[in-house]
Amino acid sequence: MQRPYFKQNPQDPKPLSIIIERRVLFNELDPLNIMWHGNYASFFEQGRIALGQKYGCGYTDFYDHQVLIPLKQFHVDFKSPLKFNDLCIIETFLHYNEAARLDFSFKIYCNNVFTTSGYSVHLMIDKNKNILVIKPDFFEAVCDRWKSGILA
Amino acid sequence: MQRPYFKQNPQDPKPLSIIIERRVLFNELDPLNIMWHGNYASFFEQGRIALGQKYGCGYTDFYDHQVLIPLKQFHVDFKSPLKFNDLCIIETFLHYNEAARLDFSFKIYCNNVFTTSGYSVHLMIDKNKNILVIKPDFFEAVCDRWKSGILA
Amino acid sequence: MQRPYFKQNPQDPKPLSIIIERRVLFNELDPLNIMWHGNYASFFEQGRIALGQKYGCGYTDFYDHQVLIPLKQFHVDFKSPLKFNDLCIIETFLHYNEAARLDFSFKIYCNNVFTTSGYSVHLMIDKNKNILVIKPDFFEAVCDRWKSGILA
Amino acid sequence: MQRPYFKQNPQDPKPLSIIIERRVLFNELDPLNIMWHGNYASFFEQGRIALGQKYGCGYTDFYDHQVLIPLKQFHVDFKSPLKFNDLCIIETFLHYNEAARLDFSFKIYCNNVFTTSGYSVHLMIDKNKNILVIKPDFFEAVCDRWKSGILA
Repeated sequence: MQRPYFKQNPQDPKPLSIIIERRVLFNELDPLNIMWHGNYASFFEQGRIALGQKYGCGYTDFYDHQVLIPLKQFHVDFKSPLKFNDLCIIETFLHYNEAARLDFSFKIYCNNVFTTSGYSVHLMIDKNKNILVIKPDFFEAVCDRWKSGILA
Repeated sequence: MQRPYFKQNPQDPKPLSIIIERRVLFNELDPLNIMWHGNYASFFEQGRIALGQKYGCGYTDFYDHQVLIPLKQFHVDFKSPLKFNDLCIIETFLHYNEAARLDFSFKIYCNNVFTTSGYSVHLMIDKNKNILVIKPDFFEAVCDRWKSGILA
Repeated sequence: MQRPYFKQNPQDPKPLSIIIERRVLFNELDPLNIMWHGNYASFFEQGRIALGQKYGCGYTDFYDHQVLIPLKQFHVDFKSPLKFNDLCIIETFLHYNEAARLDFSFKIYCNNVFTTSGYSVHLMIDKNKNILVIKPDFFEAVCDRWKSGILA
Repeated sequence: MQRPYFKQNPQDPKPLSIIIERRVLFNELDPLNIMWHGNYASFFEQGRIALGQKYGCGYTDFYDHQVLIPLKQFHVDFKSPLKFNDLCIIETFLHYNEAARLDFSFKIYCNNVFTTSGYSVHLMIDKNKNILVIKPDFFEAVCDRWKSGILA
């Protein structure tokens, strides 16, 4: 079994999550007739944005508070390839972190087969490109509701 | 023989042009092992930007004068496909136009074979999204040098 | 008003058509915060493939009969740009042609605004890359049903 | 300092490596005016393919011996973003592994700044999709030359 990408402390609230669907397009295939590996970044990003819209902590929410959330790490583990027109279930998780960073993980399923997993880690920076060490207020408020069990 | 994409009047200066090279990457291929047709937009754009940098009339030059140059038309004629690692010669032309628009045409050659041609037409709009009917001063100056034969 | 992309003779059956929806993804945007123009090729292609699946004349149907349908022409007319998360209506038409070629046209609407149109022309070639001058039997059969009014 | 992505045993030969250059294109940018993170997969792939061509162990070499080398893992660490027209130095390393897998790592530099690193791990599978446990003969021969110090 695969190790979890992020350590969860006992007192941490459970990850926030969302499920979306997406089909593999012809132009996402490579000459081997499977989805080109670089396109998983778009699948994960679509899940990440959907989760942000659902819980009010997307990149536009941060942007509205003068905070950018650039990627620090991106990772994919490939189990089986995706093919043309495959209907994928993309499950996205936001893992709780005390620090001012965002830890996302992703799972893709197709026809009930677990095909792909991965994660992305995002920092928070202000307009002067300084790395934030504490979360912006609006996101602290989201985290408070999260910890109180209202969100999940 | 293919008709010219743009009509040239007798008094118009000859098109400005530039030649660049570019290789076809693996991730630009489709399942038929040829370059996916949508990627020609990137090949043409690379030529267009190189021409703009050479003659001082690129999208950043317009942008510096508060003018955007959105695409109005985009066209490709396919003669023969491009394959992996093909070294392409991209020839880009800017055709003279009295009006406030940019008429580009493109030719791609590979191993001395003419593989692809196309064109793009761009309008000029100001920050309020109004279409310009006269060229901005800096570009009028470029056109003057062009007509006087200094540029080509 | 825009001229039709393809001439329709009085005796020709009406175009086949299909409507699909698609949202603009973050990674389809360019630095001007609008959809990068090369991505329209994917929007049109998705419509074209959906139409082929609906009427049994998609590129896989041709492929099953040892025929490829490479692009000969590709064209886009831009009316207004697409933005992040825009829900687009893509209307795809296959126009009747006596000759062994496929004439597709496309219209994109967003929030009831007509934003984009275009067309693509495809030849039919056999495995030896010879251009077909008559339609393969399976597609002739599709055209017969089309002309008899069963399909549209 | 960053930990090495792959452990090197004392008796292992030094990694094979190659350096290539590549400029960031306009259509690789995102709305934040930096290269969209999914495009690093193409930068790394270009380096990987160049290394394979140099040492005779590219995906086409494997393919000629009925072996595919699908990705098992893909990882990127982002240090600073790439901008339009940045001239990047992509350094690619193939790390020695006794097992039938390929361990690549990548470093990108721009204006003498270390901007990005990452790795990709590839399995070897035969035409029936069985995972190889021993290297194919041609690659074993490459490894022998590698260990004898002829290659690096």
